[in-house]
Amino acid sequence: MVKYFAVLLLFLAPVAVFSQQTDSAFLQKISDEIMANGKAWENLRELTKNIGGRLAGSPQMVMAENWGYQKMQESGADKAWLQECMVPHWVRGGADECLASFASKSGKKQLQPLDVLALGNSMGTAENGLKAEVLMVNNFQELEEKKDKVKGKIVFYNYHFNPRFINTFQSYGDAVKYRGQGPSQAAKYGAVGIIIRSMTHSTDNNPHTGSTRYDTNYAKIPAVAMGLQDADKLAAALQNMAVSVELKTGGHFLPDTIGHNVIGELRGTEFPDQYITVGGHLDSWDAGEGAHDDGAGCVQTMEILRAFKAIGYQPKHTIRFVLFANEENGLRGGTKYAEEAKAKGEKHVFALESDAGGFTPRGFGFDVTDEQIKKIKQWTELLAPYGAERLEKGGDGSDIGPLKRAFDIPTAGLNPDTQRYFDIHHARSDVFENVNKRELNLGAVNMAALLYLVDKYGL
Amino acid sequence: MVKYFAVLLLFLAPVAVFSQQTDSAFLQKISDEIMANGKAWENLRELTKNIGGRLAGSPQMVMAENWGYQKMQESGADKAWLQECMVPHWVRGGADECLASFASKSGKKQLQPLDVLALGNSMGTAENGLKAEVLMVNNFQELEEKKDKVKGKIVFYNYHFNPRFINTFQSYGDAVKYRGQGPSQAAKYGAVGIIIRSMTHSTDNNPHTGSTRYDTNYAKIPAVAMGLQDADKLAAALQNMAVSVELKTGGHFLPDTIGHNVIGELRGTEFPDQYITVGGHLDSWDAGEGAHDDGAGCVQTMEILRAFKAIGYQPKHTIRFVLFANEENGLRGGTKYAEEAKAKGEKHVFALESDAGGFTPRGFGFDVTDEQIKKIKQWTELLAPYGAERLEKGGDGSDIGPLKRAFDIPTAGLNPDTQRYFDIHHARSDVFENVNKRELNLGAVNMAALLYLVDKYGL
Repeated sequence: MVKYFAVLLLFLAPVAVFSQQTDSAFLQKISDEIMANGKAWENLRELTKNIGGRLAGSPQMVMAENWGYQKMQESGADKAWLQECMVPHWVRGGADECLASFASKSGKKQLQPLDVLALGNSMGTAENGLKAEVLMVNNFQELEEKKDKVKGKIVFYNYHFNPRFINTFQSYGDAVKYRGQGPSQAAKYGAVGIIIRSMTHSTDNNPHTGSTRYDTNYAKIPAVAMGLQDADKLAAALQNMAVSVELKTGGHFLPDTIGHNVIGELRGTEFPDQYITVGGHLDSWDAGEGAHDDGAGCVQTMEILRAFKAIGYQPKHTIRFVLFANEENGLRGGTKYAEEAKAKGEKHVFALESDAGGFTPRGFGFDVTDEQIKKIKQWTELLAPYGAERLEKGGDGSDIGPLKRAFDIPTAGLNPDTQRYFDIHHARSDVFENVNKRELNLGAVNMAALLYLVDKYGL
Repeated sequence: MVKYFAVLLLFLAPVAVFSQQTDSAFLQKISDEIMANGKAWENLRELTKNIGGRLAGSPQMVMAENWGYQKMQESGADKAWLQECMVPHWVRGGADECLASFASKSGKKQLQPLDVLALGNSMGTAENGLKAEVLMVNNFQELEEKKDKVKGKIVFYNYHFNPRFINTFQSYGDAVKYRGQGPSQAAKYGAVGIIIRSMTHSTDNNPHTGSTRYDTNYAKIPAVAMGLQDADKLAAALQNMAVSVELKTGGHFLPDTIGHNVIGELRGTEFPDQYITVGGHLDSWDAGEGAHDDGAGCVQTMEILRAFKAIGYQPKHTIRFVLFANEENGLRGGTKYAEEAKAKGEKHVFALESDAGGFTPRGFGFDVTDEQIKKIKQWTELLAPYGAERLEKGGDGSDIGPLKRAFDIPTAGLNPDTQRYFDIHHARSDVFENVNKRELNLGAVNMAALLYLVDKYGL
């Protein structure tokens, strides 16, 4: 038995080695093309500098869709189109303001502006603002303990982003409930507004916005995020004195409007009716330029298309390159994409997303079976030279989530290094200048490599 | 036999598991301490903003040594001292200038300043400058081919930093010979000066300096590095027209002067006379602030000391924390450290260096035996949660090189992600603002973890 097995191995080994060499050579080729001739960074410059922040429903959204449609064609799509979907239309309604009044024990008052951004989807204050005393709580438990004091106050959630998690997405997962549930939890006890400490460990004072959700059982009170330096200042002051703040925010919803997913297709040679999807989201918060979140994912997606065409790679499956609409405050684009695929009876086999920043790649997170992850892990040595060697279960991708649920297919997300992401996430600092050209390109290299392997070997 | 072996495994396994858990808990503790309470970033701010660039022999070098000595004590050294060594004293001698004169075919001349920095250790031009026609070569081979045209010219080495290498240190290794040997290779054929295309793939126009070496057989001609945008401009112009440039540089050597290694010690409990060394270099080029190169390595070194003391860790071996003098243009500090260790008959067991920037850690490179790397690789799972999971042979560390050669001990270097390093290396952009607090801290975490493992288990 041992002997037969050895013979079998001798027979198989050269085939495996040959295949590994072919794959390795292909990955080198795609990497060379992207690292030397990549257009992702220049495309990102256009998107961020010529258009800028592009929240669903904004004029910039429309500009970005048209730009994306043109770029998708320039990148070499066999076919490109806009897929219509209704999107929510939240507007900030002017500059957000927070003026604090510090009252010392001697009765002397000091006024100081603090830097805030209204949370996405939040309702603004009355036009002449909202003035109230601040009640600080460090967490929801403390809110419960102080619930009798909440009425008429502006609750300040001073919950700290935990610096001990090495993967900063864990810190985010831990803290983001204050942004999502903070307003309604406070409104339940009669609060008139809330301030959250921004979900970041950045060393600057930029506030970080992001979606909140109102529980319809309670009043929809104004809600803002505050930068860390000002949050520390406010927290320190509250140790010694009463502080009241005057908030002015103008957030409100206009009627839903028309947005689009931008889709490009590279037709498959063997299985043209089986689809692999790769994408990022085109919308972004308005404060910055949406450079990492998620301009990076968009230009990487189109770069893969450009590079495949440049080196003459013809995939077996049809690959769809998608710039999704409205990830930030509605997920309507991802939802529409899955709905239409389902309605048309399409066969989808895999989806990949890049929405964790254009930083140096470390791996991919997969939502796959145990069998599949075993197969995927065999590609570790192929991907390692390009950085994405952590091939692990536990994938994420908001926009491909509806597709996952509709078709129960394997999905994956690019996992770049996470250290810098929450420095810029949903803040004014999410600008082109903070994206490194090589890191952005390397993300595209690894994504292209994974798509090639899935296209060739399946999952 | 199989049975006995199984029994043996049963007996050993719990011990190994227990030990792994203890180590894992210790690493978590050291990581929590550094990520939550780390002082590295604030220390780096002091070094870069209060002192700045600090080339050997400069007044800033003296300030940095005094600062380091004080910080080493504050960080908790049982004993700290300055170890004297003579250092070279090269000075830039004023601002470097390059004025290009583009002569079109119609005879029209256009003057344009190009951004340059004299190479370290290079000799300046005459006081009223050096004017000559530019001869461009793309590499040394082309220099050979054009050797008859070199006389009286300023040779422009337009050798490109290769974007295809994923590890950017490979691009550096490939290109750096033009900085080191460029002047003498050109002087051999009668050139009067050289310009090199900077060793970088940065998207800005900053020139990148660094040491050059003159071959004493040839004239010591002036030598400057040019930023990429200007180098491209110059290269493009040279396709169509004659270009002459006027260089003004003032580099020269003053007599050697006194510098110091800054050393702190944490006394070992079991083997106080056996030394583990960890360090970075305190000197830096003058154009920037020496933030990544190598302020990062210095503050990480002291952070490990601070954190060990803060959590009450007492190493078995004596650990020496060293800020080396004069890595950039002489290596006198590292040489002195090894010489004195040898002269005193000290027993050294391991040395670790951080001199590849304060970027997110990816692994360590080791100069060890095959036996040792096998042992080290068993720590992969322990280190992976903190980022440094690539434990590979092929280590480097200029400052610990002399110690390696003197004692033939295992050595290692921290390998952070390399994508951004040559954007800032030896350029004006190597400033505090380009160092990320968490990435810097994470480097220290992984270094502390490795020191703990080597101290506990040996190599």
